[in-house]
Amino acid sequence: MKIPEYEEVLAAHDRIRPFVHRTPVLTSSAINSILGKDLFFKCENFQKVGAFKFRGATNAVLCLNDSELNKGVATHSSGNHAAALALAAKTQGIPAYIVMPNNAPQVKKDAVAFYGAEITYCEPTLEARESGLEEVVKKTGATFIHPFNNSKVICGQGTAVKELFEEYDDLDAIIAPIGGGGLICGGSIVARALHPFCSVIAAEPEGADDAYRSFYQKKLILSVNPKTIADGLLTSMSPLTYSIVRKNVDEIFTASEESIVEAMKLIWTRMKIIVEPSSAVPLAILLQHGEKIHEKRIGIVITGGNVDLKTISQLFS
Amino acid sequence: MKIPEYEEVLAAHDRIRPFVHRTPVLTSSAINSILGKDLFFKCENFQKVGAFKFRGATNAVLCLNDSELNKGVATHSSGNHAAALALAAKTQGIPAYIVMPNNAPQVKKDAVAFYGAEITYCEPTLEARESGLEEVVKKTGATFIHPFNNSKVICGQGTAVKELFEEYDDLDAIIAPIGGGGLICGGSIVARALHPFCSVIAAEPEGADDAYRSFYQKKLILSVNPKTIADGLLTSMSPLTYSIVRKNVDEIFTASEESIVEAMKLIWTRMKIIVEPSSAVPLAILLQHGEKIHEKRIGIVITGGNVDLKTISQLFS
Repeated sequence: MKIPEYEEVLAAHDRIRPFVHRTPVLTSSAINSILGKDLFFKCENFQKVGAFKFRGATNAVLCLNDSELNKGVATHSSGNHAAALALAAKTQGIPAYIVMPNNAPQVKKDAVAFYGAEITYCEPTLEARESGLEEVVKKTGATFIHPFNNSKVICGQGTAVKELFEEYDDLDAIIAPIGGGGLICGGSIVARALHPFCSVIAAEPEGADDAYRSFYQKKLILSVNPKTIADGLLTSMSPLTYSIVRKNVDEIFTASEESIVEAMKLIWTRMKIIVEPSSAVPLAILLQHGEKIHEKRIGIVITGGNVDLKTISQLFS
Repeated sequence: MKIPEYEEVLAAHDRIRPFVHRTPVLTSSAINSILGKDLFFKCENFQKVGAFKFRGATNAVLCLNDSELNKGVATHSSGNHAAALALAAKTQGIPAYIVMPNNAPQVKKDAVAFYGAEITYCEPTLEARESGLEEVVKKTGATFIHPFNNSKVICGQGTAVKELFEEYDDLDAIIAPIGGGGLICGGSIVARALHPFCSVIAAEPEGADDAYRSFYQKKLILSVNPKTIADGLLTSMSPLTYSIVRKNVDEIFTASEESIVEAMKLIWTRMKIIVEPSSAVPLAILLQHGEKIHEKRIGIVITGGNVDLKTISQLFS
């Protein structure tokens, strides 16, 4: 697959603008003074379905032709991409088929069902998910929308960073979490086109550091039994996202579980917003590796706010 | 004391603009669809010190003359006004003296101390607070800034509603919580001047319903042993705020503790923002008395986000 051009992100933005929220950029003087930086948080936790994923899913759906639209879209996912694709399909009035592991949290099952998708449950293994998806696609003719190994999805995610630059055009760096890499790839295409001197930094949990190892060992390494509270970042990169990361990303830092929890608490208490653990990883690398990150004005993408308050509130008690 | 004119709110806005955040207005399609309304939430939980109180305190400080500025400001409070006055004073480089009950939550003591105020602890009774304040004022010559029985404070709080109307000039109603009444009074002055047909509705906890009773019995009634999770709304109105409420407010509704908690959970989970229980009371009256509130496009002031996550997270577990 070809690396998308900035013009494709531009086109994606025009395409999805009527359907997505333009989310606010928040700042926190308290957090700035702790870190000695000026941080600008693009709040995609306020995006529809509570995550930036709605941008990419919407762009992918809007790029389908009429015959594809009729047959609908499909994916396998237990996370935000499933809900995003379900709502994007519903918004365009087409069917969505989601293959979910039967052990997915009830709150995620409910969200996907709420958006009207047809759910097929499978065993919680990658093999079962993939074969379940294959079957659904065979039966329905739906188009498989991969959560990140898809240039339309990547371009959609990049619009979050484009909006951030529209408000702050003098950033020294942007930092985004890296899981499969869709967001950092889309964002890096924007940064490289508009602000060639703005650093692009990816933030990854130590417990799921496949992107870090891939980047510095210069070969695509898949994660084996990753373990982190940042449950949105368990996935490995794909060939497409890896090639974009190698080309466009300047540095990857990893954060310990302790730093991630500390950063998340800081965001909750100081910024008064609810973010999922994955969203806290960029701030966590600043807390942990601040002395190695010299950029002063930094844009950070808050990727989502979908937490199970029952579970997460135990961190505060 | 005279009821302030709209022009005084305008002047307050010009005065405080360089020092306060212009907070975003958020919407939630999920909450709108539950209620069948269009709600616009003015997010003062993102204001400095995490509450709208910073607006009024800043305006009051900026209205002092040079000799008053030299001697500083004082108040007794265990809540957001104390932190707001402390930061407003610090921002202008003048001293702040805060009398706090010795049983105030540690997090509030820390906040006030963090903003550099001089704290005097007293027994947790109104008498001890008032005599403690009198002593401090006598010793220092500081100006007492009442949290709401003060027209400069009221005009400062009104700027939150002014900003809301600047973004949405076609609201059918505004709803704000009522404790001492500073916010609803300031807001009502703006509404009456700019949008005479926009309803002004106050929201109060059933467990602290002194404003409700005062309003419908047409005499100022003070609360006795109020009890509610909405700890920012325990205070009674003052003669000044009561006179403005009688003149400008259309209706007051009260909310049960159950509705307040339900509304707060809805805001946390659907809007991904952290709000204190007091902030949820407007949504709570809509949940509880929706059939009596016919206005469709409603502006709601989210008053603050200062919660003790340790305590509040138990509601979710």
